[in-house]
Amino acid sequence: MRPSETVLALAAQSVVARSRIGAAIVETPCLRSRMERPKGTGLFLKCENFQGTGSFKLRGAMAKLTSLAADRRVVTASSGNHGIACSHAAQTTGHDLTVVLPEGVAKSKRARIESYGTRTLLHPGDAGLAERHARALAETEGYIYVSPYNDETVMQGQGTISLELLEQVREIDNVFVSMGGGGLISGVGAVLKAFSPETKVIGVSAENSAALAASIEAGRVVETEHLDTLADGCAGGLDDDALTLPLATEVIDRVLHCSERQIAEALFQLAWTDNMIVEGAAALALAGYLSDEAAFAGQTNVVLLCGANFDRQRIQPILARGA
Amino acid sequence: MRPSETVLALAAQSVVARSRIGAAIVETPCLRSRMERPKGTGLFLKCENFQGTGSFKLRGAMAKLTSLAADRRVVTASSGNHGIACSHAAQTTGHDLTVVLPEGVAKSKRARIESYGTRTLLHPGDAGLAERHARALAETEGYIYVSPYNDETVMQGQGTISLELLEQVREIDNVFVSMGGGGLISGVGAVLKAFSPETKVIGVSAENSAALAASIEAGRVVETEHLDTLADGCAGGLDDDALTLPLATEVIDRVLHCSERQIAEALFQLAWTDNMIVEGAAALALAGYLSDEAAFAGQTNVVLLCGANFDRQRIQPILARGA
Repeated sequence: MRPSETVLALAAQSVVARSRIGAAIVETPCLRSRMERPKGTGLFLKCENFQGTGSFKLRGAMAKLTSLAADRRVVTASSGNHGIACSHAAQTTGHDLTVVLPEGVAKSKRARIESYGTRTLLHPGDAGLAERHARALAETEGYIYVSPYNDETVMQGQGTISLELLEQVREIDNVFVSMGGGGLISGVGAVLKAFSPETKVIGVSAENSAALAASIEAGRVVETEHLDTLADGCAGGLDDDALTLPLATEVIDRVLHCSERQIAEALFQLAWTDNMIVEGAAALALAGYLSDEAAFAGQTNVVLLCGANFDRQRIQPILARGA
Repeated sequence: MRPSETVLALAAQSVVARSRIGAAIVETPCLRSRMERPKGTGLFLKCENFQGTGSFKLRGAMAKLTSLAADRRVVTASSGNHGIACSHAAQTTGHDLTVVLPEGVAKSKRARIESYGTRTLLHPGDAGLAERHARALAETEGYIYVSPYNDETVMQGQGTISLELLEQVREIDNVFVSMGGGGLISGVGAVLKAFSPETKVIGVSAENSAALAASIEAGRVVETEHLDTLADGCAGGLDDDALTLPLATEVIDRVLHCSERQIAEALFQLAWTDNMIVEGAAALALAGYLSDEAAFAGQTNVVLLCGANFDRQRIQPILARGA
């Protein structure tokens, strides 16, 4: 089926975004996995865990900021990968950036954001209220709000991963991508559908926080319960107007669901076989591949490792277990 | 000082070797480290831990085998990184390879060598006697013996690391290389001295097995005590006729000595800051940089991570400790 105009436009703009951000991001390696696998099966790891700031989010943040006039003030509301990525991007582009944080935010997280010269603004209440305040600043004070996923330009940045991938590996059958708000899989998937239409895009969803998967199934944004998950980088709900819902629905060929046990097992394998320690959201993508390995035998598979920012206290016990 | 003819010839032949082996090896990434460091200091990791077979040894083995006529029978005597690298190389080139192993070798190591279709030959006694038998086969039966380090063509292969490095990072001030038999540092150092003479080559020696460092100091091959070391990939003595002694003596600008505690600390840092689990011999090179960090501040530093083949039982406790 021919991709929609929206998908084709996103892919084309991703090419443009790459020319803007190429010098500021790492062209991440795509490594052949050392895991045992069925004969004739290719398994590659696209290593955004080695991206600047330790996460693919830098691509989207750079794509967004480089699309704005130099004098626009920018605001966002994340203490995690997206907040760090925007901070690094603003340091590179020179944009004035404010990050709104809930007043209870961990000191270390606030300090990391501020280490880039970013202004932080503490807001009463939880992360949801901080985000609402950031959006309000955009509406009332003329700031540009940078959404972590619900933004075409951000998705164009994430799509540059696929542009590199298509130069690094030939005739890819399947790409495994973890699903959070859908910005990553929409950008990555749009470029694949446009430039490598025979490649299947496999979305991998954490059972404990599956808003996007549930919304795709329902055909509209639905609320789901969010339990604690190792793949915390993927956790959270969708905006009511999420651009990612129609995009992800179009570009995803199959959704796989993984348990916490499966994510932990993938994390263990990555550490002790491929010798990389990644965040849970990255291990989730491998867990998807492993969950139905036989179905992908004899094919060329790429697992996208989205990042490596984690809480060591949480990962250490997983790596310490016996064989 | 102008490099010797021997060094210049080795560097030139390394360029030729690269054209032979390029398609069969991984052009390994050179990643910017995420470690905190003095302002203005560059710290890059050249990741041979992601080389095929998990070690730089594949380069030397491929360089050697691709230099031989297809019908030459080949023999070596390593159950470790070199044996695996030769096995993989022989599978690629089609050479008939025999690996002589001491009869007490661990079954898993023998199985790994044989998994490439390599013939193994069990010999009574220790690894030293196995090596002597392999050399005897070369003398009496016409085999080509492939030394893990004492071979110009093998060193030319290792030198291809520097050819990649000079394309990946500009104006390198210091390259840190762990010292074993000296094949790695001789090859890497010769290419640097020939093509980037202002770059300093820093050899890093494990205090517990420092034969090359002691021999350089003495100006001749000397025996040293070999205690157990985390950097077991670097352990062992030198052949009496080691070609690497004059080469390493010429190309090394400074030698740093590291304790087991320093190697373990570097291993911990690599795992939890740069998110890579490497073998002790690779961590040794970083330990050298860290041992005198202030001396390298404001400069561009590259640490060569030589491999990632380790005994998990040995590494796990090091990663499990508290912050």
